[in-house]
Amino acid sequence: MRIALDAMGSDRAPAVEVEGAVGALHELGDDLRLVLVGDREAIKAELTRHPDAPRERIDVVHASQRIEMGESPVQAIRRKPDSSVVTGLRLHKEGEVDAFISAGSTGAVMAGSLVLLRPLPGVDRPAIGTVFPTAEGPTLVLDSGANVDTKPQHLLQFARLGTIYAQDLFRVETPRVGLLNIGEEPEKGDERSVEAYGLLEEADGVHFVGNVEGRDIIRSRCDVLVCDGFVGNVLLKFYESIAGFIVHLLRRELAAKQVDLDLEQVFHTLDYTTYGGAPLLGVNGVVIICHGGSPPRAIRSAIGVAARSVERGMVDDMVRALAGPADTPEVR
Amino acid sequence: MRIALDAMGSDRAPAVEVEGAVGALHELGDDLRLVLVGDREAIKAELTRHPDAPRERIDVVHASQRIEMGESPVQAIRRKPDSSVVTGLRLHKEGEVDAFISAGSTGAVMAGSLVLLRPLPGVDRPAIGTVFPTAEGPTLVLDSGANVDTKPQHLLQFARLGTIYAQDLFRVETPRVGLLNIGEEPEKGDERSVEAYGLLEEADGVHFVGNVEGRDIIRSRCDVLVCDGFVGNVLLKFYESIAGFIVHLLRRELAAKQVDLDLEQVFHTLDYTTYGGAPLLGVNGVVIICHGGSPPRAIRSAIGVAARSVERGMVDDMVRALAGPADTPEVR
Repeated sequence: MRIALDAMGSDRAPAVEVEGAVGALHELGDDLRLVLVGDREAIKAELTRHPDAPRERIDVVHASQRIEMGESPVQAIRRKPDSSVVTGLRLHKEGEVDAFISAGSTGAVMAGSLVLLRPLPGVDRPAIGTVFPTAEGPTLVLDSGANVDTKPQHLLQFARLGTIYAQDLFRVETPRVGLLNIGEEPEKGDERSVEAYGLLEEADGVHFVGNVEGRDIIRSRCDVLVCDGFVGNVLLKFYESIAGFIVHLLRRELAAKQVDLDLEQVFHTLDYTTYGGAPLLGVNGVVIICHGGSPPRAIRSAIGVAARSVERGMVDDMVRALAGPADTPEVR
Repeated sequence: MRIALDAMGSDRAPAVEVEGAVGALHELGDDLRLVLVGDREAIKAELTRHPDAPRERIDVVHASQRIEMGESPVQAIRRKPDSSVVTGLRLHKEGEVDAFISAGSTGAVMAGSLVLLRPLPGVDRPAIGTVFPTAEGPTLVLDSGANVDTKPQHLLQFARLGTIYAQDLFRVETPRVGLLNIGEEPEKGDERSVEAYGLLEEADGVHFVGNVEGRDIIRSRCDVLVCDGFVGNVLLKFYESIAGFIVHLLRRELAAKQVDLDLEQVFHTLDYTTYGGAPLLGVNGVVIICHGGSPPRAIRSAIGVAARSVERGMVDDMVRALAGPADTPEVR
């Protein structure tokens, strides 16, 4: 298996990417090869700092351009054909690699994926799935920011994509799908939610467990939580910041009292870097988007997520699920 | 000053309400009188458990009906004219009391307030403001669930209402108003947000500081944060649940390690009961809504918030602000 990693994406690129890549190569099986895409000299220089790197499993593909955070995604994709993002996605499109990972501009990765990989048949709008750590395990929240002003039928598509992801990646046979809403009853919420509730309730292949309120997310009432990208994005960013803020409050108090407590241990449950990147679901390929501020550990996890997605045939499973029950003989 | 308190609202009514009321009467000045509205016998029985209660400052007004959580708010208001909610709001409307507080059905309190007190001139949709504890102090988030499918002009109205609330209650001279969004740039977000950005930027009397992302909330980038009630409600409930969840994780770890740490102290910053209830802003009166699960301390805080709102003339200030600059001579 070959996975392309945008080596120029993160705030501390390529150091973080190279360190994460080396870690993943050691951690994962021998049949994993990584293609580092970006400034060849910078990547090579960085690699010399890792004498333990299994160089025979690392390829470097040069890309002379880099997309910056402030750039308009669509324009950047057009104007920078030799950027690390476009180059990596092109390798994926051409079958040179099985997956692409980037900690660069989310918008550019999305725009590039739409143009180069194309959405899967039956998907109007690919979605970003984010894994929320919760009391009982992971919940995939989608959309986490790829789309705003979504329609009810998009939420249904997210439910189908999320179901396959949870089956393949979380190994949950019948993932529970919830609709993020402000009350439990079907008639609660905005127009979009009320209509989506009806669609989800009727949908084949989706195990819909009803509306899920903000307070229920952390209690793992579902494996897949569908929502518009606006609220999903606000929630994700809030979650990340509040966990960090609470750790900060605690560290201050613990230091003052000279109490020795391993906060990493306590908050392991809540650490999103465990889950690495966020999959872009609904495109014809495996694309994982990481935070610009990712530590090497998050890059390593993202590579693991990409590898499992490829191994388990996630994209093919999605194509089958989206084709619907007409193609899958079943007893009614 | 007289404040009516729905004694039948909370999950543990009237015990919690009576205890909170007695606490507030001791804490606040001698010119505060409370009117406890609800089942007279139950309230009196509860009062006998508080021999220290200043009975001369407590009135009991009987209400034979109680609105239950599952009831349709609008129907409940119509069908239960002798409920504690309707009775309390009627006392407010008739000028018998200066404010009304309830930990009962949020929907019923809202519906009752709209029918009996009416919205202020210039307000299409009253909003629920919730005080989010943050790193630097309180941020008023509105709307927190009174409205979904809001229009951009409603968000502008929320900004005006929130500005006055922050001036009068937080004592901030020029409150910073933020628009909850998924990016900082004016063109980011859904259609509603983009249009609201333009309105807020142009608005007199609103100190607009731009878009505020989920990650910025906890950093107190603003005193007032406006958003649609859908996302505000999801965020509020998520916030409350995650703080509780983290405390739970910590207690487990601290107990296992036999570490003595006062978590209440650490999380004081994050404790929403400090701020008591949520004001319903934009109606012609002072209405504070509390959680059904409120402890007495939250009821006591809510009474304090109501008292300060009355003292500082919040409603009159809102009327003036909504009338706009035409009525308030100013140098241009």
